[in-house]
Amino acid sequence: MANYFEDNADLQYYVDKGLDWEPLVALTEYEWRAADGPASTAEAIELYRDVLTLVGEFAAETVAPVVREIDRTKLRVVDGEVVHPEAFDGVIEGMKDMELFGMSLPRELGGMNMPFIAYMMSIELIGRADVSVVAHYGFHGGIAMALLLYSVLEDSTSFDVENNQITSTRFGEAIEEIRAGAAWGSMDITESDAGSDMGALRCKGELDADGTWYVTGQKIYITSGHGKYHIVIARTEPVASADDPFGGLAGLSLFLVPAYEDGPDGSRVRTFTTIDGIEDKLGHNGSATVAISYERAPAMLIGKRGEGFKQMLLLMNNARVGVGFESLGLCEAAWRMAVDYAAQRPSMGKTIDRHEMIADYLDEMHTDVQAIRAITMTGAYHEEMSQKIRLKLKFFPPDDRAEVERLERAQKRHQSKARRLTPLVKYLASEKAVEMARKAIQIHGGAGYTKDYDAEKLLRDAIVFPIYEGTSQIQALMAMKDTLVGAIRRPQDFVRRAATARWRSVSARSTLERRVARLQSLSFATQQHLITRIAGGKFRDMRSMPVGGWSQALADWDPKRDFGPAMLHAERLIQLLIDVAVSEVLLDQAERHPERADVLERWLERAEPRSRALHDRITTTGERLLAKLAEPVAMDEAAK
Amino acid sequence: MANYFEDNADLQYYVDKGLDWEPLVALTEYEWRAADGPASTAEAIELYRDVLTLVGEFAAETVAPVVREIDRTKLRVVDGEVVHPEAFDGVIEGMKDMELFGMSLPRELGGMNMPFIAYMMSIELIGRADVSVVAHYGFHGGIAMALLLYSVLEDSTSFDVENNQITSTRFGEAIEEIRAGAAWGSMDITESDAGSDMGALRCKGELDADGTWYVTGQKIYITSGHGKYHIVIARTEPVASADDPFGGLAGLSLFLVPAYEDGPDGSRVRTFTTIDGIEDKLGHNGSATVAISYERAPAMLIGKRGEGFKQMLLLMNNARVGVGFESLGLCEAAWRMAVDYAAQRPSMGKTIDRHEMIADYLDEMHTDVQAIRAITMTGAYHEEMSQKIRLKLKFFPPDDRAEVERLERAQKRHQSKARRLTPLVKYLASEKAVEMARKAIQIHGGAGYTKDYDAEKLLRDAIVFPIYEGTSQIQALMAMKDTLVGAIRRPQDFVRRAATARWRSVSARSTLERRVARLQSLSFATQQHLITRIAGGKFRDMRSMPVGGWSQALADWDPKRDFGPAMLHAERLIQLLIDVAVSEVLLDQAERHPERADVLERWLERAEPRSRALHDRITTTGERLLAKLAEPVAMDEAAK
Repeated sequence: MANYFEDNADLQYYVDKGLDWEPLVALTEYEWRAADGPASTAEAIELYRDVLTLVGEFAAETVAPVVREIDRTKLRVVDGEVVHPEAFDGVIEGMKDMELFGMSLPRELGGMNMPFIAYMMSIELIGRADVSVVAHYGFHGGIAMALLLYSVLEDSTSFDVENNQITSTRFGEAIEEIRAGAAWGSMDITESDAGSDMGALRCKGELDADGTWYVTGQKIYITSGHGKYHIVIARTEPVASADDPFGGLAGLSLFLVPAYEDGPDGSRVRTFTTIDGIEDKLGHNGSATVAISYERAPAMLIGKRGEGFKQMLLLMNNARVGVGFESLGLCEAAWRMAVDYAAQRPSMGKTIDRHEMIADYLDEMHTDVQAIRAITMTGAYHEEMSQKIRLKLKFFPPDDRAEVERLERAQKRHQSKARRLTPLVKYLASEKAVEMARKAIQIHGGAGYTKDYDAEKLLRDAIVFPIYEGTSQIQALMAMKDTLVGAIRRPQDFVRRAATARWRSVSARSTLERRVARLQSLSFATQQHLITRIAGGKFRDMRSMPVGGWSQALADWDPKRDFGPAMLHAERLIQLLIDVAVSEVLLDQAERHPERADVLERWLERAEPRSRALHDRITTTGERLLAKLAEPVAMDEAAK
Repeated sequence: MANYFEDNADLQYYVDKGLDWEPLVALTEYEWRAADGPASTAEAIELYRDVLTLVGEFAAETVAPVVREIDRTKLRVVDGEVVHPEAFDGVIEGMKDMELFGMSLPRELGGMNMPFIAYMMSIELIGRADVSVVAHYGFHGGIAMALLLYSVLEDSTSFDVENNQITSTRFGEAIEEIRAGAAWGSMDITESDAGSDMGALRCKGELDADGTWYVTGQKIYITSGHGKYHIVIARTEPVASADDPFGGLAGLSLFLVPAYEDGPDGSRVRTFTTIDGIEDKLGHNGSATVAISYERAPAMLIGKRGEGFKQMLLLMNNARVGVGFESLGLCEAAWRMAVDYAAQRPSMGKTIDRHEMIADYLDEMHTDVQAIRAITMTGAYHEEMSQKIRLKLKFFPPDDRAEVERLERAQKRHQSKARRLTPLVKYLASEKAVEMARKAIQIHGGAGYTKDYDAEKLLRDAIVFPIYEGTSQIQALMAMKDTLVGAIRRPQDFVRRAATARWRSVSARSTLERRVARLQSLSFATQQHLITRIAGGKFRDMRSMPVGGWSQALADWDPKRDFGPAMLHAERLIQLLIDVAVSEVLLDQAERHPERADVLERWLERAEPRSRALHDRITTTGERLLAKLAEPVAMDEAAK
């Protein structure tokens, strides 16, 4: 029987030993104090393994066979509701039977209390079969988890510390419905004139005299937006200033809006919302993308008024890591599809996988899949550790002050790593999904262009990854700003890290370590170039200024306006940061498990010349275009 | 009124002065001796301009408005024949009315006697509206021209030298039908187990006792294969040896097979052929891709028995340049679509074309479109010059022996340039079409993923370009072999050219010239690296061997077996060759027309670091994979 978990040794590596499970399981299982939980990390991992084995079989044996049918049945709106094809409903029923939607929910809320990263692994497994199914799947468990987290953060969840369990939680009803598969949720952000630009959002939240909130406006491109529980971002305060493009972010709040009530006959009764339409998309055909209108829909304010943007970001981190995992599933599928086809397709006296260029493609795809998995797992791990330590500190902080401080430091460390890795994960996995799907088609030749094979579907599905949950360009900007602003704010730290890398690139004992240090060194050199280049525009003397003086010299200076050169090269910079970050993760693996050195070597072989090329591009090009952009907009353009 | 010719200054440059029209028009117009032809080059160019202006208007006003309808109406086989949507038939009727199918046919055959490159320009113009329409369009004029050329080459066309006109031609009936738009043709190459590997073709041609040829077998993926006149490649001699994967090429012959007869009521009467099915493809929905079977279909042998592969290559060169022009049309469309959207889409207080990364995308797309046009026009020009000089030498050679020799040299020069450029044109234009279509989607954000916008259609259409008429990998192999084998055969010439480039990279007067020479130098260094690397595997002492000794040392050595390292890097090498070739073409333009220096500068800005990166990749990586490929196939694999 086919099984997407059992046939995947690289994925199993993470379950067996790749991740540092001990502290994560301890946090998840309240240090094994819960009566009904596993008794040890080993026992917990065995449970995760068993569940993932079942999911792997489900993906291969239940989802994969109906994927074409789901892809080829257009979703329609009938009597105001979206109708799924039967095959899709069958898959969701299967998930319900396996209780997958509650995988990461606490046991007392009916869940399996597995780490979020295990839920993410299930996303990879199902995503290998079909990413549109998995996109919908993510809006069950993912939204239930988000509601629980929001409730915890706003202090509307009560916890029985004695028995290590939640006794009540504000959105408990929604969470229970979602867990049981009776409803699902969605994140409603985009509006027709506000995509990446959330400051331009116009959908509004209004507070009545009796203290009830109402949401009014239209949201578009809402994945699984035909569901019941909508987390909606809406404006509760006017835009601060028309001149400040970022001012609009401050006036946003987050709401939970139930879009319908369940009628006694199982029908949906919509009073304040309307599904305005469903997108006809290039791919992701099993996943409904809807436009939905709110007409003074009663809403629950989540957290504090005006903090919607901040809270949304919290959700977005997980969503972005989630896109990493679904992209990873698609990459795995593309690579295997290409390998299988190439191994049986003869040309010029041998199968095409023995032809050098095709072998090179397959080798790169294989390496990339492993690299994506490495960085995606690591990003998800740190994100979860960061969140779980924070919850521990909130609900049952240790008595020992030193231990509290140790945990606080650990939380900060994990948070900073997660923050650093998240945009890289989203960028790499989504861009590679497009690249690999295209390679899978190319390797199939003419057959790949026809619907007799599934390669073309992979491409149609992949194209949205670099767009939704923040485009690749947004990820690049975030990574660039974090990296450069960080260096500017803590120049001594930057200098120290750069010097360490330089030193290790010659002194480290192992060749692999030296090679990774050389990459780091190249990245620091590139960052330093960009910083002096940016500053050069403002302070002519900065090029000769000692690094320690950056921070002060740039004090009165607005990164949002002055980052032109870095913005121009942001996508190249994030690619370089990815080359380095993946190398670091793989080096860490190789040091713990020598058999992983092979992945790192394959990765470095391609990352090294690529990084040199990126450094070359960033440091030698772009002046012409920057000069052109600095010119005032022509009068006729400005008049518009 | 919209006009795709009038709004395109870069394309007009080629009509007005970019190409060396004088000798081409002279050859096309029999040195202006034809009574009914234009009287001068200027008059001829004015005619071409007028015709292209009409085509530009037709593309924008007649084709563009029905493109969505054509894309969304699935082609079907009804009663054994393919049914086109009405909108498609309307477009073809329009072409018929404008007599576009005969654009490049001689006047005495009912054509306009315009150069083939003008026909190619019309392909770009219509391709900008829809490439599936243009794919079909190319199988009218293109096949008529091919039949005329084949007939000339096999001496079955008679020419009245006195009056400078053809008096009869073997395939005259087919040509006339195609010209009038009453029929069209196709090239039938691919079979289910033979794609890029033509040696594996099994469709057979048999000679009857009475001297009639019959073709039997099935061809698949035949573009416009529901037409009447099929140029079919079939096996007439057995495969030379099962061990020699290239032996099969020698036994192929070319045939013209009419697939049906016209019934008195306009119906099609098929006796020996059957349309087995039509492909359901990712895109190119207006263009039928069919499988067709031949059951002892009466056929006309074209040229000599056993020379089918050679003749097919002749047709393929034009077909590949044709793909260059249709890809160019799509690139132009993608670039404009992206520019238009970005100029009206606001984000963060400005339109997104003012955001650095998007501006960078648009700038690169603009430069690439111009680069593709430059190399595609140049390739097409040399191909046509080569063919037309050859025809002149055959039909009305000059009396003066020195003049004959001058023409022979010119023909060889053009032929060699065309041969060098054709795979580069096919590779660059088709790969860029995919890249630009994807960028157009990305720039549209979420909107680009929906069918409300046309960006997604561009990608669906583009994906086939790097596959059909020889995959990108095949183009890379051809370019690599031509380049390296050429260098090995004429090492002194190689050394001289490399030394010249090195010298000019420091001595040339203009900066641009020096920069182009530096690129050339880098390319030669890369080639030399590959040659010594290849040879290193066979002759350990070759690395220290003077270049002049290459030829002899490699005399007994089989490039088909020993080119491993070069095959591995073939795609990177062709990218480097493209960077150099485009630079050379643009430098030539800049020297003739200073306003073109801007295009070259924009191109070099990106080509220089890219070339350095390619040189780096080629010279520092690949050993591991080559070693792996050199290992004998594992026993279980070999057993299959």
